[in-house]
Amino acid sequence: MEERFKILPGEELHHLLQDELFILQRKDQFRFGIDAVLLANWVRVRSNDKVVDLGTGSGVIPLLIAYKKNPKQILGVEIQKEMAELAARSVALNQLEGQIEIAHLDLRRIRERYLPNRFTLVVSNPPYFPVQIGEQSPNDAKAIARHELLCTLDDLIGGAAHLLGTKGRLAMIHRAERIPEIFRKLTNYGMEAKVIRLIQPRVDREANLVLIEAVNGAKPGLKIEPNLIIYDLNGNYTSEVQAMYLGKG
Amino acid sequence: MEERFKILPGEELHHLLQDELFILQRKDQFRFGIDAVLLANWVRVRSNDKVVDLGTGSGVIPLLIAYKKNPKQILGVEIQKEMAELAARSVALNQLEGQIEIAHLDLRRIRERYLPNRFTLVVSNPPYFPVQIGEQSPNDAKAIARHELLCTLDDLIGGAAHLLGTKGRLAMIHRAERIPEIFRKLTNYGMEAKVIRLIQPRVDREANLVLIEAVNGAKPGLKIEPNLIIYDLNGNYTSEVQAMYLGKG
Repeated sequence: MEERFKILPGEELHHLLQDELFILQRKDQFRFGIDAVLLANWVRVRSNDKVVDLGTGSGVIPLLIAYKKNPKQILGVEIQKEMAELAARSVALNQLEGQIEIAHLDLRRIRERYLPNRFTLVVSNPPYFPVQIGEQSPNDAKAIARHELLCTLDDLIGGAAHLLGTKGRLAMIHRAERIPEIFRKLTNYGMEAKVIRLIQPRVDREANLVLIEAVNGAKPGLKIEPNLIIYDLNGNYTSEVQAMYLGKG
Repeated sequence: MEERFKILPGEELHHLLQDELFILQRKDQFRFGIDAVLLANWVRVRSNDKVVDLGTGSGVIPLLIAYKKNPKQILGVEIQKEMAELAARSVALNQLEGQIEIAHLDLRRIRERYLPNRFTLVVSNPPYFPVQIGEQSPNDAKAIARHELLCTLDDLIGGAAHLLGTKGRLAMIHRAERIPEIFRKLTNYGMEAKVIRLIQPRVDREANLVLIEAVNGAKPGLKIEPNLIIYDLNGNYTSEVQAMYLGKG
């Protein structure tokens, strides 16, 4: 086995897109789910976009976007040092170092590290759940990925607004029940939700996730795309979702 | 013909619910559309609710709610004198004066006329379109019903927040593209969107309308109901909409 495919104890190599893409993950840490795949497929990316993924974790979103949409450059920002290192190794083993950079950085300090108007597209699959007092430890890597311990909606949207110029876009996936809060925060930072796509786990279940594209400095006016359905009634991925896992486009 | 069924020149008598309900409309004025029917059917009404319809027009929403959901009392508020008089005559000809009152009143003066915490449920099918400078005349009755000349989102939601006590509900129908603005205004007045149902004109068209239930003083947390489809692919009402026009429930 080649050196760059080396897997350390406690790690596993996840194969994606019919073995065209590989992602290292630690078994004891947060592993990416379908949400990241849905976002990476949905987001509109232009070839000259400067993309940043806030809270990149294993780097799955930069890797998928590089493979599927091939923008000029993608930065993945990750607060957890071990995760950032793992993501950088995944970038290397896919030989995408020329396109993807991973930065170990606290999103809340992004203003100090990057000048305003530095990117044209921010993507994020952020922690979904507000922090309940006393419930989670900020030392728990899984809790950091799931709960807003180190990345609140304000941190995310405020950071995005800083990094983007006028007309810059923020694309994220989040819990549908939090749409009103998200819209409110977007407004607070001068952004406007322009497109949403609701996600239903099945055709007979209510939407519980949402894809949102917001634009910095845009006028109001929301477009609502047809719902995305994840599983058919037999429990298999719908053809739309299957296609996301199988290849480009 | 009975006296109470008398129709004046320029008026027409609209039959609803298999001739169980009648509504007078003027041919030269705004006539109610399916939106009012969708809202009146969707809104959750309790038997002890004190309901107010802001911008009641022909009174169609109070009439449908009285017939279908039978709450204790319903007030319809209408700024246009002729419309308010017509609505009052429709209430009389359906013999619902004991349950429905029509008030000729400018919504923007509702704080002067009604004490706070006077109602438990506000419903509204408000004007959908913002005013473009110089575009509409405030003397045009149809324009008043369609454009925010005399009733902006602030007038509506601010008025509702005044009329409702804590946990009081506001149910409205509006253009889906305005959801972010509506959520923002709700927050400004201490209300929170709790349930939405998107409306598609057809199964293969994107949602363009939305039903929204907001609750005064509630915590965040949005429930998204399955989309409502108006027409089938043959151009007929779907069975769900047909049932709304045919009877109770």
